[in-house]
Amino acid sequence: MRHLLSAADLSRDEVVSLLDVAEEMHEVQRRPIKKIPALRGRTIINMFFEDSTRTRSSFEIAGKWMSADTINVSGKGSSVSKGESLRDTMMTLDAMGVDCFVIRHGSSGAVAQAAGWVKAHVVNAGDGQHEHPTQALLDAYTMRRHFRDQRLAEGFAGKRIAIVGDLLHSRVVRSNVLLQRTLGGQVTLVAPPTLLPTGVERWGVNVTSDFDSVLERADVVMMLRVQRERMSGGFFPTAREYATDYGLTPQRLARLKPTAAIMHPGPMNRGVEISSEAADAASSRVLDQVSAGVAVRMSVLYHLLGGEGEAR
Amino acid sequence: MRHLLSAADLSRDEVVSLLDVAEEMHEVQRRPIKKIPALRGRTIINMFFEDSTRTRSSFEIAGKWMSADTINVSGKGSSVSKGESLRDTMMTLDAMGVDCFVIRHGSSGAVAQAAGWVKAHVVNAGDGQHEHPTQALLDAYTMRRHFRDQRLAEGFAGKRIAIVGDLLHSRVVRSNVLLQRTLGGQVTLVAPPTLLPTGVERWGVNVTSDFDSVLERADVVMMLRVQRERMSGGFFPTAREYATDYGLTPQRLARLKPTAAIMHPGPMNRGVEISSEAADAASSRVLDQVSAGVAVRMSVLYHLLGGEGEAR
Amino acid sequence: MRHLLSAADLSRDEVVSLLDVAEEMHEVQRRPIKKIPALRGRTIINMFFEDSTRTRSSFEIAGKWMSADTINVSGKGSSVSKGESLRDTMMTLDAMGVDCFVIRHGSSGAVAQAAGWVKAHVVNAGDGQHEHPTQALLDAYTMRRHFRDQRLAEGFAGKRIAIVGDLLHSRVVRSNVLLQRTLGGQVTLVAPPTLLPTGVERWGVNVTSDFDSVLERADVVMMLRVQRERMSGGFFPTAREYATDYGLTPQRLARLKPTAAIMHPGPMNRGVEISSEAADAASSRVLDQVSAGVAVRMSVLYHLLGGEGEAR
Repeated sequence: MRHLLSAADLSRDEVVSLLDVAEEMHEVQRRPIKKIPALRGRTIINMFFEDSTRTRSSFEIAGKWMSADTINVSGKGSSVSKGESLRDTMMTLDAMGVDCFVIRHGSSGAVAQAAGWVKAHVVNAGDGQHEHPTQALLDAYTMRRHFRDQRLAEGFAGKRIAIVGDLLHSRVVRSNVLLQRTLGGQVTLVAPPTLLPTGVERWGVNVTSDFDSVLERADVVMMLRVQRERMSGGFFPTAREYATDYGLTPQRLARLKPTAAIMHPGPMNRGVEISSEAADAASSRVLDQVSAGVAVRMSVLYHLLGGEGEAR
Repeated sequence: MRHLLSAADLSRDEVVSLLDVAEEMHEVQRRPIKKIPALRGRTIINMFFEDSTRTRSSFEIAGKWMSADTINVSGKGSSVSKGESLRDTMMTLDAMGVDCFVIRHGSSGAVAQAAGWVKAHVVNAGDGQHEHPTQALLDAYTMRRHFRDQRLAEGFAGKRIAIVGDLLHSRVVRSNVLLQRTLGGQVTLVAPPTLLPTGVERWGVNVTSDFDSVLERADVVMMLRVQRERMSGGFFPTAREYATDYGLTPQRLARLKPTAAIMHPGPMNRGVEISSEAADAASSRVLDQVSAGVAVRMSVLYHLLGGEGEAR
Repeated sequence: MRHLLSAADLSRDEVVSLLDVAEEMHEVQRRPIKKIPALRGRTIINMFFEDSTRTRSSFEIAGKWMSADTINVSGKGSSVSKGESLRDTMMTLDAMGVDCFVIRHGSSGAVAQAAGWVKAHVVNAGDGQHEHPTQALLDAYTMRRHFRDQRLAEGFAGKRIAIVGDLLHSRVVRSNVLLQRTLGGQVTLVAPPTLLPTGVERWGVNVTSDFDSVLERADVVMMLRVQRERMSGGFFPTAREYATDYGLTPQRLARLKPTAAIMHPGPMNRGVEISSEAADAASSRVLDQVSAGVAVRMSVLYHLLGGEGEAR
């Protein structure tokens, strides 16, 4: 692995290796002294052109726990805000001897393009409405543990995964669909017709606008965040109508299988796409996803940078 | 100790232990190699929703010198600015395995509320006009050293501490009053009537609007910062009038006991609440307060996080 | 060396020592494990009152690779933005026990003034239109390596260095002129008459407005960044005219000696002061300058802070 740009780039073996090492990293995370020397002397730039406390912190913690040097560059206050091209900024930091860029960018495709300019490794931490592969990996990690905890059959084959909400603007759904294509989960996408991406019928998954029809058979229900700022764009009805038709209400919660996992990439809009009852239910894996995020990112960084004596 | 939210939560023994360990930390601070392994593998989030170079840096230095991993989250550029609730942000970071949150927040009570949401330890680094307990501790540390240096009687009992200025908007005064209630210092609050908090008569301290009446007997004179932006709110007369009535002018400086300490939490408005003569006087402890700040915060973090093999 | 404020402060021996240690640091930079313990337990504040991803990152990486604790303070979000004086901020951080301030400030002379307020070491990372001494050092480092690679005579004596562009607003040119005065390079400044600083005739260097006249004899051509925001101030013709008269176009590139180095402090405006052909030419040292920047800053920090058992 040289970069992690898209969930589609990962072979089944690579995913399994990433999740297995993440299990080991999860053990580190539970220790009182959370520190291993794995990436000592490696330098990671967290380059976030969009605000994201949780993803940036998750990567920063992952790097620090493995003893890497981590440096934050934000869009605001960066040379890029002075009109410098992203290319020159990347090439400059690369020339300093940085080992890895973790990049979040508002434009779809910008991270893959950036990877072409540098010798360092690049991790896509979310690019526009395109992809967010570490999110899909942490989701897979969380599902795998959930299936094991619930003593369901091992593996993703035959598991029914419903992803519900604003599919149109979501990089999370794209990366999950691509990863499950490799892992074998059966994905059903649920959204109002206004929030279906063009060409979704070619994604090779089931698509419906009837949330209730999938409730009883789902092994995983993944609720997507409603971006309130998009509420006024004609994509959405009112928040109340949305909650009624596509929210995981207490009524819908009651109809889920007892072994079904409730997931959400966060941050949650309680009362809109997910009720507090569902968010805080025993079967909610939302905080497990967050916790898995650090372990999975440690695993990703370790796979990219952990090679012994790797030369630049 | 699980959290440090209010100066009122600390027993006398806890305060003494905090100040004693701070003395040891102060020794570390004077070494050329300022580094001890005490908090290696612990992760501290500095979460500042209000700008504060000095307090944030003081906590960040304290953590780093004890080998902790420190991560900064500011209000701007955080998920909270995208409308995410503070609760979800805290729970998210907590789920990652963070050991301690150091929080400054503009709303009184917000930090104590936040402590209820997480498994990690929480330190109040200033909440609205409510409390700033590490400031009160570093003030007590500075006073204790000053009393010792001046060969005054040991302990706070009977010491006269005048706190002068904008009591209404000051979290520093509240935490100092609460801590001195435990330590036994005799606090007198001095302010124009417009800057007295409602109910101050129930605080159990002396209150006056006549600064000159307390000058000659004070062992400590603590001047509070005037917030210039409040000057126009009807609370204050002009800066010149304020300086005349409530500033530590050269004239008032001359009337202090030679053993009296001059203190100020900073940043100072020279020429308003404190003259440059007083700020730079031999008896000014202002920079000692700053220096003590790092030692005291090291001690606080060590008390909260330093337990051997502590499990989360 | 106590501070690095101006390139003029450095003796010839000091420059040679700085460049020689930078060679050793450059070796560290090429290792897979980029970490030496040289500055363990030292604390460096990067205090940038102007945005600068590249310079701030370069200093931060330099500090971290030498195991120093590095802390970032930006102008925005700092106490200085609340009206606190730079003096009080500096004195406060100094009192905490900080070992070094690396400062970029928009006002010429502000960094030298700041150095007078503190016990810590101070490095000027660019002050207004005044100086940027580490840039001049990394430029000298890059030239020295280039001369060696090209098997030119050792040393700077007799080398012809053309610096081209907005001399009026450039701190880079000032520091380079001062450093070459010590090293012996023959500097020619090239700019339109509107961009010549007052008194440039007393700088002791050649000055011309005819770029073409210097092309064929130059050993180094250093192109300066055009600040697009100054384009409207009457200093500049249009970008197109500027590129024609003062840009390093493919035509001019062809007239350079094959051994001439092309340099630029970055970020580059491709198509304005430098064509992409020149920026990416085999003789372009632009990325070498960036790479040298980390090594030179490691050397500077090591010279200032690396003394064994140095006491504050």
